[in-house]
Amino acid sequence: MTSPDILPPQIILVRPQMGENIGAAARAMLNFGNDAMRLVAPRDGWPNPAANAMASGAGRVLTDARMFDDVDAAVADLGYVYATTARMREVSKPVLSPQEAIADARARIGAGQKVGILFGPERAGLETRDLIPAQAIITLPVNPEFPSLNLAQCVLLLGYEWARQSGAALPDPHTVQEPATRLEVQKLLERLTGRLEEAQFFWPEHKAEPMRRTLENLFYRLDLSEPDIRVLHGVVRTLGRDKHDGSRG
Amino acid sequence: MTSPDILPPQIILVRPQMGENIGAAARAMLNFGNDAMRLVAPRDGWPNPAANAMASGAGRVLTDARMFDDVDAAVADLGYVYATTARMREVSKPVLSPQEAIADARARIGAGQKVGILFGPERAGLETRDLIPAQAIITLPVNPEFPSLNLAQCVLLLGYEWARQSGAALPDPHTVQEPATRLEVQKLLERLTGRLEEAQFFWPEHKAEPMRRTLENLFYRLDLSEPDIRVLHGVVRTLGRDKHDGSRG
Repeated sequence: MTSPDILPPQIILVRPQMGENIGAAARAMLNFGNDAMRLVAPRDGWPNPAANAMASGAGRVLTDARMFDDVDAAVADLGYVYATTARMREVSKPVLSPQEAIADARARIGAGQKVGILFGPERAGLETRDLIPAQAIITLPVNPEFPSLNLAQCVLLLGYEWARQSGAALPDPHTVQEPATRLEVQKLLERLTGRLEEAQFFWPEHKAEPMRRTLENLFYRLDLSEPDIRVLHGVVRTLGRDKHDGSRG
Repeated sequence: MTSPDILPPQIILVRPQMGENIGAAARAMLNFGNDAMRLVAPRDGWPNPAANAMASGAGRVLTDARMFDDVDAAVADLGYVYATTARMREVSKPVLSPQEAIADARARIGAGQKVGILFGPERAGLETRDLIPAQAIITLPVNPEFPSLNLAQCVLLLGYEWARQSGAALPDPHTVQEPATRLEVQKLLERLTGRLEEAQFFWPEHKAEPMRRTLENLFYRLDLSEPDIRVLHGVVRTLGRDKHDGSRG
């Protein structure tokens, strides 16, 4: 996000296996402006060339990543820890949607707490013992018949949820076109109905008034901008002119 | 989602390049319970073994995917079309966040409309001409300094947003007007540009193409209903006919 209002959570990858997935997670973090990565005992050691190759533009997330031997060490300085799990478990901890978890995390960070989110290894996910230091569980709202997300996708979705709630990089309202004034619409309608009258469009007589009203309603309702009005003036002028008089206007 | 309250949008991949990415997009769709895929002119033809290999458990999304030659054909039966773009452009269409777009889509689908979301090819994204039949643009709230998301990630994020919002109460369908299908707009434009061509509207020569595109963008963007289209057909028929032949239509 352009100007993050508060610092995002620590993203903690627990015993990640493939270097490629660590690199992809780094990219996913940076896509939403988070560069605070922690790694717990990556399977293939560290640094990992495959991770760097995959991260490409997000390499500095890997360079700055902090390394830990176990989950306890990785969360030691944090005040509140969330653990992501794909499947429901027998845990006596609150289970939150990403939306609920990020709202909670934002409140905590805003109050000066340091928070982190644990992500498990690719195949098996977090083990029950990894969940011990976590205060809450995050479960993604995936299709139970096809739940498998990869590591970077999980990181991406939490990052998106963070960006969504921080209102970062919201679309610029100025890209929406300024509407034409009602007077400009009136003038277009005058020209249009004038030409249509000449061409006996409002016919039969007793339907003329409702037809006229339908047309007016239509053009007033449309979200016409000033440039739109200009284009339509040209269209009406061109179509309405007598083909045999040869004038352009 | 467990029990989708309403059917999700059509996911339309425009000229996708790598089969792997089509397969990954199919997985991302099914992760959030959407199996309605449309493909526009995939680069390497169809079926594509690489797509099926990547899709694994989501293969049936590919099997059921509908194939189209161009964007116009792919959106012909839809009432409302969103286009995803990474970068801001000079387009006179509303620019929505995923959250706003999905809220809007849910309201429309709840009111019986058929909607779709366009995703561009991997490298270049959607071209300006692909945006013509779309009524709104979706821009993801990514970090402007590291915005690159892959195709499946874009599909995944929109799917997540859909799942996140499902279960929330639907907005009142009565405030949303039934739009004309994209095909009906296409047909109106064909008639209009045909008449304008006869009247030498697209002139000088070197401006003909931009003028045509301006007109197309204008009509696709307007919130035209089916009755509106009927009225406008009447207008074009009346204005475009030769005044001296005396025929009505």
